[in-house]
Amino acid sequence: MREETIAIGALPLDCGVTLPDVHQRVTIYGSSRNVVLVEHALSGSSRAADWWPGIVGDGALFDPRHCCIVGINALGSCYGSTGPATIASDGASYGDRFPRITVRDIVRAEMSALDRIGIERIDLVVGGSLGGMRALQWALDAPARIRAAVMVGSHDHHSAMGVALNAMQREAIALDPARGLRLARKIAMLTYKSEELFNRRHGRRPDRHGRRQFDVEGYLEHEADRFEARMDRASYAALTHAMDSFDVRSVRLREMPALVFVGITSDWLFRPQDVCAAQRRFASLGADAEYLELRSDHGHDAFLAEPAALRTLLQTAIATPRECASC
Amino acid sequence: MREETIAIGALPLDCGVTLPDVHQRVTIYGSSRNVVLVEHALSGSSRAADWWPGIVGDGALFDPRHCCIVGINALGSCYGSTGPATIASDGASYGDRFPRITVRDIVRAEMSALDRIGIERIDLVVGGSLGGMRALQWALDAPARIRAAVMVGSHDHHSAMGVALNAMQREAIALDPARGLRLARKIAMLTYKSEELFNRRHGRRPDRHGRRQFDVEGYLEHEADRFEARMDRASYAALTHAMDSFDVRSVRLREMPALVFVGITSDWLFRPQDVCAAQRRFASLGADAEYLELRSDHGHDAFLAEPAALRTLLQTAIATPRECASC
Repeated sequence: MREETIAIGALPLDCGVTLPDVHQRVTIYGSSRNVVLVEHALSGSSRAADWWPGIVGDGALFDPRHCCIVGINALGSCYGSTGPATIASDGASYGDRFPRITVRDIVRAEMSALDRIGIERIDLVVGGSLGGMRALQWALDAPARIRAAVMVGSHDHHSAMGVALNAMQREAIALDPARGLRLARKIAMLTYKSEELFNRRHGRRPDRHGRRQFDVEGYLEHEADRFEARMDRASYAALTHAMDSFDVRSVRLREMPALVFVGITSDWLFRPQDVCAAQRRFASLGADAEYLELRSDHGHDAFLAEPAALRTLLQTAIATPRECASC
Repeated sequence: MREETIAIGALPLDCGVTLPDVHQRVTIYGSSRNVVLVEHALSGSSRAADWWPGIVGDGALFDPRHCCIVGINALGSCYGSTGPATIASDGASYGDRFPRITVRDIVRAEMSALDRIGIERIDLVVGGSLGGMRALQWALDAPARIRAAVMVGSHDHHSAMGVALNAMQREAIALDPARGLRLARKIAMLTYKSEELFNRRHGRRPDRHGRRQFDVEGYLEHEADRFEARMDRASYAALTHAMDSFDVRSVRLREMPALVFVGITSDWLFRPQDVCAAQRRFASLGADAEYLELRSDHGHDAFLAEPAALRTLLQTAIATPRECASC
């Protein structure tokens, strides 16, 4: 594994602003020429093996002994790439002054970083949630560079409900930066899980530490504790705005890599029927688009929580192990 | 229509506290002896004709010219019954000192109020959401007084997801009493509506007043504006805690009035499959329990937003117009 912070210079953004002196944090596992680009979601980093065990790592679906796995921290995030926590030219961090970015801006910065480290051809770009939006945007903006794109729990636009849920989370942060980030994470966790999972895991049991609350409330506290230590609130706002901006339903296709859309049966944030509708839209435009369904009661989070099932589902569709072995 | 505030004296609560000098605001429409008790939800009042047009009122399903419709403001609310806004014996309002109440406490206060105004026999008790919980609690606690209970978008316990969503709303209020109540209402509105309705009504359209946001965000602002003017934040907390307390799955039935459970196809807060499961549980205990389904894309709110469809659905099941005409 090697890690680099790559200076890509000034980056023109969709909003019209040019962001100066942009950096991209890249983590590379393995040295094969068979490149798998792994795109993280809202709170991930370039270290794909850390947050996607079972999918990235030795013995995983994408094994650095057979392929070259590249993770890039998204523009706007807080794990090494330029984002709101970056110090601007006036010596203070951007914070809320960070410009409103889009998924296309995020991908434009990634392309520039890969250009600079000499990665031209990408066998597979894969991601879940916001990572799936990034993967699809790559497929649209650099079709000639990519063999296939895999989008898990993600489709071709952010819905009104998704937009509203993101707005609620930003509003919580605006009420109180520290405690609001905790509340934002808790609201998000509800959208990442499912009613079935909560019934099974928590039901109506009382808090396991004896506090005057239900077990599910204690679980959410615990998740908020973990999250506030690792996430910048302005990055949270920047990346949720980027998600909100995403809508590629009206694109016109030229050439197109193969597309694999994976819906999760219990996902109510990116519902399987909407993922399937995205696949059908691209297929109707002539793309080689496939729809697969991950059966899980974990909700949206199944793309992280069910690596074994996801691996089984993807193995045939992407045929990567065979290709990796031959490279 | 006549309105009364009834002093019911001291009320022993499930938590062990006795609440002194409790009052219940009652609104009565019509003078028939055929009584329909209408139970409001989280933010309703005793004035059922105001918040349930098409169901309560002249020409509606429950018509005061044919039956006597009784609305009671729930204990803990802020529309005339004793609640957090009530002045306690020390001269200050209870506020957050208001004891933690249950749905059973709310119904116990209602029974006492009806006793005092001489209403013994209830033909029908009906409500949606928290109002449905109240109706079912009535059926369990006073089966001999009631012919039938109708629960719309409501079942026999509050789920882990429901509990968690209420906790998020109270946490928003705790962050900032005024702005937090707005956020709580917005979160609640998402749970009351459906993805389909939002896609149809708002989609990804920009704000209609030109603000830098999506139309759905502007809609939620508007709902928050309306709400903050009419709801007490401590009542919001008290009544959501009461909802959280609700779980009658382990009751033992003696006699039981007829039960009608109505699920709403697009309701994701009180999912139709869970409403149906509640009906089956009561039927398996020997109750005369029926399940009906309201087809609507309005989500949980359909019990308010689709009165014509609800009326059609209920008309046969409750056979009230015919009974009313004969009394």
